[in-house]
Amino acid sequence: MRLSRWFTPSTTASAHCDLPCGVYDPAQARIEAESIKAIIAKVEGNDDPDFRTRAIVIKEQRSELVKHHLWVLWTDYFKAPHFEKYPQLHTLFNEATKLAGATGTKGALDAKVADQLLEKIDQIAEIFAETKKA
Amino acid sequence: MRLSRWFTPSTTASAHCDLPCGVYDPAQARIEAESIKAIIAKVEGNDDPDFRTRAIVIKEQRSELVKHHLWVLWTDYFKAPHFEKYPQLHTLFNEATKLAGATGTKGALDAKVADQLLEKIDQIAEIFAETKKA
Amino acid sequence: MRLSRWFTPSTTASAHCDLPCGVYDPAQARIEAESIKAIIAKVEGNDDPDFRTRAIVIKEQRSELVKHHLWVLWTDYFKAPHFEKYPQLHTLFNEATKLAGATGTKGALDAKVADQLLEKIDQIAEIFAETKKA
Amino acid sequence: MRLSRWFTPSTTASAHCDLPCGVYDPAQARIEAESIKAIIAKVEGNDDPDFRTRAIVIKEQRSELVKHHLWVLWTDYFKAPHFEKYPQLHTLFNEATKLAGATGTKGALDAKVADQLLEKIDQIAEIFAETKKA
Amino acid sequence: MRLSRWFTPSTTASAHCDLPCGVYDPAQARIEAESIKAIIAKVEGNDDPDFRTRAIVIKEQRSELVKHHLWVLWTDYFKAPHFEKYPQLHTLFNEATKLAGATGTKGALDAKVADQLLEKIDQIAEIFAETKKA
Amino acid sequence: MRLSRWFTPSTTASAHCDLPCGVYDPAQARIEAESIKAIIAKVEGNDDPDFRTRAIVIKEQRSELVKHHLWVLWTDYFKAPHFEKYPQLHTLFNEATKLAGATGTKGALDAKVADQLLEKIDQIAEIFAETKKA
Ligand code: NI
Ligand code: NI
Ligand code: NI
Ligand code: NI
Ligand code: NI
Ligand code: NI
Repeated sequence: MRLSRWFTPSTTASAHCDLPCGVYDPAQARIEAESIKAIIAKVEGNDDPDFRTRAIVIKEQRSELVKHHLWVLWTDYFKAPHFEKYPQLHTLFNEATKLAGATGTKGALDAKVADQLLEKIDQIAEIFAETKKA
Repeated sequence: MRLSRWFTPSTTASAHCDLPCGVYDPAQARIEAESIKAIIAKVEGNDDPDFRTRAIVIKEQRSELVKHHLWVLWTDYFKAPHFEKYPQLHTLFNEATKLAGATGTKGALDAKVADQLLEKIDQIAEIFAETKKA
Repeated sequence: MRLSRWFTPSTTASAHCDLPCGVYDPAQARIEAESIKAIIAKVEGNDDPDFRTRAIVIKEQRSELVKHHLWVLWTDYFKAPHFEKYPQLHTLFNEATKLAGATGTKGALDAKVADQLLEKIDQIAEIFAETKKA
Repeated sequence: MRLSRWFTPSTTASAHCDLPCGVYDPAQARIEAESIKAIIAKVEGNDDPDFRTRAIVIKEQRSELVKHHLWVLWTDYFKAPHFEKYPQLHTLFNEATKLAGATGTKGALDAKVADQLLEKIDQIAEIFAETKKA
Repeated sequence: MRLSRWFTPSTTASAHCDLPCGVYDPAQARIEAESIKAIIAKVEGNDDPDFRTRAIVIKEQRSELVKHHLWVLWTDYFKAPHFEKYPQLHTLFNEATKLAGATGTKGALDAKVADQLLEKIDQIAEIFAETKKA
Repeated sequence: MRLSRWFTPSTTASAHCDLPCGVYDPAQARIEAESIKAIIAKVEGNDDPDFRTRAIVIKEQRSELVKHHLWVLWTDYFKAPHFEKYPQLHTLFNEATKLAGATGTKGALDAKVADQLLEKIDQIAEIFAETKKA
C-alpha cells in the first residue's frame, strides 16, 4: 500500500456492512494479507510440526478473509461507471481473490505469493483512492 | 483517531490471528465503529421501518466486531509491562467494550454514543502507537 | 433454472471448498434465492410485525449466502479462458451479487427483485453447464 | 442420489432457513458429501504433508455441514406423520449424521466411508421425494 | 433441570467437539433456553420497538444454539444401545429441537413455549444422567 | 471449579447474549476448558498424525471459545463496583484469556497448561458466585 493511502483523513476509514453504511476500505483486506506474510515468515523460523499445523489453519482463515473483503469491495463499493472507467478492475479483483485461494496463499507457504497478493491489493487500493477523490 | 496514526508507514497495518502473526491494529475496531456511526446517521434520514430493522441488526453485528477486535488487543497484544506502564489500560478497554454493548451502541441509536466509542478507541490507539514506538 | 440443468447426472452435484475438491454447483446459490422468493411470499400473507422482523433478518442471511456462493464460483471455478470465451461473465456475476445486496434482495421485500436474481443465477448456471460439457 | 431426483422440476430446489421458507432439499447435504469424497481422492494422489493438513481441516468443515443440513431436515422438514409412516427415519438420520462425524468422515480418510455416507443420504432423499409427491 | 444434576461433581462438565473429547453436557442447551425465557420476560416489560427487534434477533440466535447443542447430544453422545434402552429418545430430541424452532421459541414470544422447551431439555438431561451413571 | 458452584440452584444457569438477558455462567468457559484437557489426554494415547492434526484444530477452536466466554463475563457481567471490590479481577481475566491463547492452550499440548487455565477459571467462578450472592 502506497504511503499516500495513509495520508487521507480518518473519515475515509471504512467497513463493509451491506446496509450499506457507505464505509469501505481496502485496508481490511491488506491487514489480513500482511498477517499471511508474517505467518509464512514465522513458519520458516520454526520447525515444530504442531506449529506448522496451526500456521496452515490460520493462514487458511486469513486468506478467506482477504477474499471476503475484496469481494465486498468488488460488489458493494464499485459501481457500473467505475468498471467503465477502469476496465481492468474485474480482472484485478478476480486475480487478487485467486491469489488468496488454493492457487495462491491458501495452497502455498511462499513469501513471494504473499507479496504478489499484497501488490494486487495495493493496485486495487490505488484505484479505490482515485474514485474517492473523484 | 488522531491524524498522526495515519502517517505511520503501512508496515504497522495489522491483524489479530493468534498464531500470533504479530500484526495488530486498532484500525480494525475503529473501522467498525465508524460504520456504526454512519448507520445511525442513515437511520435518522430514513423512516422506512424495514430499513430500521436492517440497521438495528447490522449495528448489532458491527458492535460485536468492535468488542471482538478490542478484546483481541487487550489479551493478545498488550503484555504485563504495558499494564504496569499504563494502569488505566484495563479500565479503558473495559469501558470501550461496554460502549459497544447493550449499554452502548447495541442498545442505542444515538450518534453521541457512537462518538464516545470512537473516542475511547482513539485513546487506546494512542497508547498502542506509543508502545509500538518504544 | 432451465430444466436442462436438472437432467445432468448427479456426479455434477458440487460444492465449493477451496482445497479445491473440484465440486462446484450453481444450485447452491439458486436454493438460497428460491428461499428468498418464498420468504417474500410469506410476508405478503402475514401481517404480524414480529414475523416481518424475523423474515427480514433471515432474508438478509440468505442473500449473503447467495453472494458468497456466487463469489466462490466467480473466483474459484471460472478461469482465465472462461472469461475470454464469455466476456459478459464478469458483469453477470457483478450484477447478480448486487441483486442479492442492499440494492437487491437485502434492501427490498419485492418478488420481482427475487425473480431478477433467480434469472441472473440461471444465466450463470447455463454458462457453467456449457463449460462443464466442454 | 438416484437419477430420478434430478428430473423433478426446479421448484423442488430447497433450502433450510427456519422462518420457515418451506424450501428444503437433501441436495445440500449431498453436495457436501460429494466434496468429502473428492477430497479423499485428492489426498490419495498427493503426499505433500501441508496439503494433507488442509484436506483434513476442510473435510472436517464439510462433514460438519453434512451433519447440519441433515439435522435441519430431520427437525424442520419431517413432521410426526412422516415418522409414523417411515419408522426407520429416526435411525436413518442418526446413522447418517454419525457417518459424518468422528466415527465417520471426520475421523477417516477412507473412500468407503464417504460412499456409505452418500448412500445413507440417498436413502433419506428417496423418502423425502416420496413425501413431496404425497 | 432437576437439582440432582447440579450435585454431580464438576468432572461431568462437558462440551461437544467431535474429536471427540468425550465431554458432553445438557447444560449447554439449558443455558441457552434459560436465556430465551429471560429474553421473553424482558420484552414483556419493555415496549420500545427497537428493543423488541433486538430481542427477536437474539432469541433467534439462542434458539439456534439450543437446537445445535441438542443435535450434538443426539448424534454424538447417544449410541445405538441407548436408543434401544430409551425408545422415546428419538421423539424427545425431535420434539425438543422443534420447540426451539419456527413452531417453538423462534416463532413465538411466549413464556409457556420457553417452559415447554426447558421441560423437554430436563427430560433429556435426566436420561443423560442415567446413562452417565451406568 | 469448586464443588460449591454446583450446589447453587439451577436458576443461576446462565448465558451471555447482549440483550442482555441477564443470564451469565462461568460454566460455559469451564466446559470448553475441560474439553481442551480431554483433547490433550487423547493425543497422548494416540500417535496417528491425522488425529493429531484434528486435535490441534479442535483445541484451537475450543480455546477461542474459552476466550470468548471469559471476555463476555469481563465486559458484560462485571460492572465498575465489582472491579472496585475485586481489584485483581482485571489481571485475572487477562491472564486467563492469555492462558487460552498462543502462549497457553492454543500453543501447547500440555496438560499442565490446561490445568492452569482451569484453575484461573475457577478463581473467576468463585468471585462470580460471591457477586451473585451479594
Ligand atoms: Ni457498512
Ligand atoms: Ni495475527
Ligand atoms: Ni470444494
Ligand atoms: Ni428456509
Ligand atoms: Ni468435545
Ligand atoms: Ni444473554
